[in-house]
Amino acid sequence: MDDITLDSIGPLRLYQRKGGYRFSVDAVLLAHFPVFSRKTRHVADLCAGSGVVGLLIAKRFPWTELVLVELQESLAELARRNIVLNGLEERVSLSRADIRELGKGTSPVISPGSLDAVTVNPPFRPLNTGRISPTGERAIARHEIALRLDDLMGAVKRILKNGGRLYIIYHPSRLSELTESMRREGIEPKRMRFVHPREGESSTMVLVEGMKGGGVELAVEPPLYVYRNDGSYTSEVEEMLGGPLQGANPV
Amino acid sequence: MDDITLDSIGPLRLYQRKGGYRFSVDAVLLAHFPVFSRKTRHVADLCAGSGVVGLLIAKRFPWTELVLVELQESLAELARRNIVLNGLEERVSLSRADIRELGKGTSPVISPGSLDAVTVNPPFRPLNTGRISPTGERAIARHEIALRLDDLMGAVKRILKNGGRLYIIYHPSRLSELTESMRREGIEPKRMRFVHPREGESSTMVLVEGMKGGGVELAVEPPLYVYRNDGSYTSEVEEMLGGPLQGANPV
Repeated sequence: MDDITLDSIGPLRLYQRKGGYRFSVDAVLLAHFPVFSRKTRHVADLCAGSGVVGLLIAKRFPWTELVLVELQESLAELARRNIVLNGLEERVSLSRADIRELGKGTSPVISPGSLDAVTVNPPFRPLNTGRISPTGERAIARHEIALRLDDLMGAVKRILKNGGRLYIIYHPSRLSELTESMRREGIEPKRMRFVHPREGESSTMVLVEGMKGGGVELAVEPPLYVYRNDGSYTSEVEEMLGGPLQGANPV
Repeated sequence: MDDITLDSIGPLRLYQRKGGYRFSVDAVLLAHFPVFSRKTRHVADLCAGSGVVGLLIAKRFPWTELVLVELQESLAELARRNIVLNGLEERVSLSRADIRELGKGTSPVISPGSLDAVTVNPPFRPLNTGRISPTGERAIARHEIALRLDDLMGAVKRILKNGGRLYIIYHPSRLSELTESMRREGIEPKRMRFVHPREGESSTMVLVEGMKGGGVELAVEPPLYVYRNDGSYTSEVEEMLGGPLQGANPV
């Protein structure tokens, strides 16, 4: 197991594979985007990777029960170890499943219409664009090879309750396709926040909250800046990180 | 004619009707959003009102020829006077027409597929929401009574060349409907800029550039702030206004 590193982020410690998919600041931004009331109890994190988003959510909202869903065994194994490492095995479980099967009669993993909220940090780039990274694990996580946007939204619709919420981080260059895909499945965009690396720079990520069965009325919140001009994190992001960030890929 | 005021904005002087529709900062932001090369010659400004957007565009790009399209005679009359007042009658004309008829065989106003660019500051709110202002002229200009979003996009598609550009300012709360309506008519959102009254406040307007027949790839630019915290205009907006703004409604 000497290809595994142990990193820390805020209240979490996290096993990650060297040269494999490693969490970036985007996971941390996504995990801090939802605001859950006590009524939000049943939550799933899809495309969970080594578990960073779901585990941060579990720490932020101690009344929640989470299912992490990850297809790749190598990452699922890390996620299982990370759940135990952080003492969260009573509230967080790992399911190795194909997201396209979730909420269907044939899948025992998540019952249809059972969830209050879903978080997902999905593959960003469309097929055949961008640089495909050489490592298979990373390629599958980063690109839309194993999971198409419409398949993802179909699954989210099936597993959310009516009125349940989706929290997703995505690339602004495909924002129109994202919102169309959401609306096709009856998940109305309600809240959006654009992430800019620095003041005066274009957006490189967007956080979107959708509501199953919600009415049309979108709020676009103040932009989120990741870095100050001197290269250090902004106070907002520093607070999310809860201390110096180790082991993350840069934005 | 004592219900008419004479106001100035940057290089323009502008007749407006007291108590009728008056331009706001949104018109100024829209007029400064496009960046035209010398190849962009034939331009229309729809929902032209008293002409502020089209006339500012004409001043910014002295190689353009513009048609201002306005349905209401009271506003069209003001726009005609404003064209002459600013010495632009050789390059700018006014057509009183229903936008829903533009580019159809029966309408002589604008030939199908003839325009390099279209600007439009359309009615913001959907029917039956928001406060309807008491004055009829203002109500028609502000609300989606005379013109529905899909009708507008249908007309824009008909009159633009392939590769031609649309520049529109809209309310973020209806962004998803806007981009869907654009894409249904083959006008792909390519550039977006969110307008926030002040730093730390949610967006109240969004500027969108679309391209007829364009590929999927959207850039979300740095946010545009209108006011500093002390209530004065930011230097970016002050530069657009080209001097103290008189006669505008507040954002």
